[in-house]
Amino acid sequence: MNIGNRVGYQILSGGDSTFQTFNPRLNSFNQINVFEATDEEILLAVELAENAFYEFSKISGFKKSLFFRDIVQLIESKELELYELYCSESGLDQTRAKVELTRTKNQILNFATLIASDEWRFCSTEIADENRIPSKPELIKGLFPLGPVVVFGASNFPFAYSTIGGDSISALAAGCPVVFKSHPLHAGTGDLMAKIVIEAALKNGMPEGVFSNLNSNDYSLGEKLIENPKIKAIGFTGSINGGKAIMRLAQKREEPIPVFAEMGSSNPVIILPSVLRDSAELWSVNLSNSITNSAGQFCTKPGLLFFVKDEFSLKFIELLVKEVESKDFQCMLSSSMCDNYNRLLNEREGFVKLNSKQGEVKANFAKPTIGICNSSIFLENEFLAEEVFGPFSLIVECENLDSLRRCVSSLKGQLTGTILSNSNKELTETGIIDLLQLKVGRMIFNGVPTGVEVVESMQHGGPFPSSSESQTTAVGLDAIYRFVRPICFQNYNHELLPEFLK
Amino acid sequence: MNIGNRVGYQILSGGDSTFQTFNPRLNSFNQINVFEATDEEILLAVELAENAFYEFSKISGFKKSLFFRDIVQLIESKELELYELYCSESGLDQTRAKVELTRTKNQILNFATLIASDEWRFCSTEIADENRIPSKPELIKGLFPLGPVVVFGASNFPFAYSTIGGDSISALAAGCPVVFKSHPLHAGTGDLMAKIVIEAALKNGMPEGVFSNLNSNDYSLGEKLIENPKIKAIGFTGSINGGKAIMRLAQKREEPIPVFAEMGSSNPVIILPSVLRDSAELWSVNLSNSITNSAGQFCTKPGLLFFVKDEFSLKFIELLVKEVESKDFQCMLSSSMCDNYNRLLNEREGFVKLNSKQGEVKANFAKPTIGICNSSIFLENEFLAEEVFGPFSLIVECENLDSLRRCVSSLKGQLTGTILSNSNKELTETGIIDLLQLKVGRMIFNGVPTGVEVVESMQHGGPFPSSSESQTTAVGLDAIYRFVRPICFQNYNHELLPEFLK
Repeated sequence: MNIGNRVGYQILSGGDSTFQTFNPRLNSFNQINVFEATDEEILLAVELAENAFYEFSKISGFKKSLFFRDIVQLIESKELELYELYCSESGLDQTRAKVELTRTKNQILNFATLIASDEWRFCSTEIADENRIPSKPELIKGLFPLGPVVVFGASNFPFAYSTIGGDSISALAAGCPVVFKSHPLHAGTGDLMAKIVIEAALKNGMPEGVFSNLNSNDYSLGEKLIENPKIKAIGFTGSINGGKAIMRLAQKREEPIPVFAEMGSSNPVIILPSVLRDSAELWSVNLSNSITNSAGQFCTKPGLLFFVKDEFSLKFIELLVKEVESKDFQCMLSSSMCDNYNRLLNEREGFVKLNSKQGEVKANFAKPTIGICNSSIFLENEFLAEEVFGPFSLIVECENLDSLRRCVSSLKGQLTGTILSNSNKELTETGIIDLLQLKVGRMIFNGVPTGVEVVESMQHGGPFPSSSESQTTAVGLDAIYRFVRPICFQNYNHELLPEFLK
Repeated sequence: MNIGNRVGYQILSGGDSTFQTFNPRLNSFNQINVFEATDEEILLAVELAENAFYEFSKISGFKKSLFFRDIVQLIESKELELYELYCSESGLDQTRAKVELTRTKNQILNFATLIASDEWRFCSTEIADENRIPSKPELIKGLFPLGPVVVFGASNFPFAYSTIGGDSISALAAGCPVVFKSHPLHAGTGDLMAKIVIEAALKNGMPEGVFSNLNSNDYSLGEKLIENPKIKAIGFTGSINGGKAIMRLAQKREEPIPVFAEMGSSNPVIILPSVLRDSAELWSVNLSNSITNSAGQFCTKPGLLFFVKDEFSLKFIELLVKEVESKDFQCMLSSSMCDNYNRLLNEREGFVKLNSKQGEVKANFAKPTIGICNSSIFLENEFLAEEVFGPFSLIVECENLDSLRRCVSSLKGQLTGTILSNSNKELTETGIIDLLQLKVGRMIFNGVPTGVEVVESMQHGGPFPSSSESQTTAVGLDAIYRFVRPICFQNYNHELLPEFLK
């Protein structure tokens, strides 16, 4: 199968450079041959997006919502094909594929519902007062799309944070055309999804360029897109280094633009003594599931477990390690990610691996692992707090509550922070809540951080470096506000106002 | 009079370096001797701000509102002294001082009203569903302060955008302690205002460090503050170059932080033929007032006037020039600003000065001036679109509507855009609204851009370079949202939730 670049309503494959996608489960290349976008194709995609912007930004929310609903309908007519591509390019299994596709469809439908009326774009009105000296004008404020947006596909969410995932759909809902940089690991899945989006766009009379899908196996495509002055914002989900590089490029432009990057997080879990004592079994099961689910390749995987060493903590460690050892070895998204995982576990110093599960490890499969260190070592070695992408979590055994608090205070920004406790008194006395709250975007009480609800009240974005803009969220309806800005209309003849502000 | 640095509840003047403020109207130094902050004083102010953050962020909005009301009361008890210092350090007259102080007090009172209840901090709730598989957690999202904020005083608003002006009061209202960098031009005014803020803070039991006032006559103080890792956001009003330098420093930090910089703008005014024909007198008066008010030292001064050359435009130019010539020469904020103004008018090429008012120009006084060029020259020389700070506006005479549209499309981001027209048909046919809207934060219809209403519906912030974050506003109640971020609480025991989310 040959895959080109979907540039507006054309499919272009004018370049010489191609790559194949890889099936990590089979450890072999797929028969999917992807043409990398040429400079001309990139420029054309951006130009079409800019041309589309004017018309697209004026299309009513209701009409856009029909476009969104048609995307979902077309997805449903291609589900089997999508699952097959997804599994062959990600190593993730069909169960996960189904859950993720359902989530993706729900995200699209939720935004369709939100924008079916343009009410969300209205901010506020100030009534004129002609008797005041000087007279007071009428002011009406509403939200308007920023312009063409570039979205980078995420390796770990081929559906939900890729082609028409959370970033793309919130940008389109806001009225911004999207130039999508498909993730090379699952370019085939991405191309089929892009075909669906473009078919729905055509059917609903959307302007050409409202969505383009470009392929590349290296950084240069992303760089060219970020540097293009017609692009007005970036959506990204990926590593801290990737996010930082994008932020730098976006700030170096003559006109700097906002980057909404959702990067890395270790998602600390604080386990207070009452839980170690009374609920060790329950939480060893819950946590081991959360650590190993989808090979630990979630941005909210709990990567750090803190507790004070006591008579019950040893038993908890034993239970947790047993649970984690009971898990199968798990296929990772790519061989290089699996190599990275193994390298980090083998080369990172300062902690001890606790599980001893034996058995043959297939290529690209990761061994679920628990590490342990004490709080002094943790505090001395900043790198121990850094995310390990994969089914690994590090226990930090603290001498006492004071050293636990110091550990929490030493953390950088995180997407989530979790506290497990069976006692309010204990919680209040430890003062952990206040310390943890400074570091995170979502506080979880007696739960696990994985399983991100896609609802308005979700906050997926924490202090740097977990995200580039802690004031925004990448998940949930509020994600739409990343791609709009307010404009105030002073003393406007109401006939001339945009429809939704009349 | 010696002026130290107000670091928490102390006054420190441990340095050797001092400067005096200057009275531009008298062209002589004031007897105000200002001690520049030492490195120790800077570090202490930031440390106290960080220490204060924890307690201050937990103080109820109601209690903070009492603190704000006391600031206003104390201002009222010192008005004469404030006016005197203000006029002696800014060259602005008493009428302006009064208007600006009233505005400043209203800003403080408006935020006091907003925060008297903490309702504004509530975002949304998602109700739990235990029957769903997997069970759905409860999610509650609210807004929380970012941390200690640095605010830079503005040269042109010694009250309203300085010590306890719009940036400081919105940061404090959000729950962020403020380290204020006083503008050296009016350090005496700033010190008296800081004394008032600190007296009110003490009286209301606010933690030490909630507000500090630091002095410096060069850039190094600002740089040290921006680079301090304890600082979590920046508020700035000033030049494009100043704003860009701050953005660069803030992005270079290990933890980049948001910069809310309100920079330069030329505030284009598009005058359509119907106005030239039927309302030339009215608008020549309105515009000349807006251009010369407070020596044209407003960020929303109309600096570019566009129209199509026709039989009526020559008459309009004549009327406008006559009006501008009828204005007195005006004292500028400082001698260096006046020098800059004169240098720009004399050295910038590509336009012709139209007015010929003669007479002696006193030191630091500026001559209100209208320039003119045609649209081809304007389009060829990007610098002609750049802001001239002072009582100057450039007429761009366009050959036809097409070249007028090209001129508007060539503009960079602006705070405001104004359209004058007596006919809806004309407005719609020219297509100017849509072009202008892409460039600005506020669209004004048949009005002037100066006179910024301080209300919720105001948008003061447009695309770069007029501001660094077009998605936020520096004026009006919505300015508070610059200094908070959302935190989501998942499955929280309601007893443990912050009071306003219960």
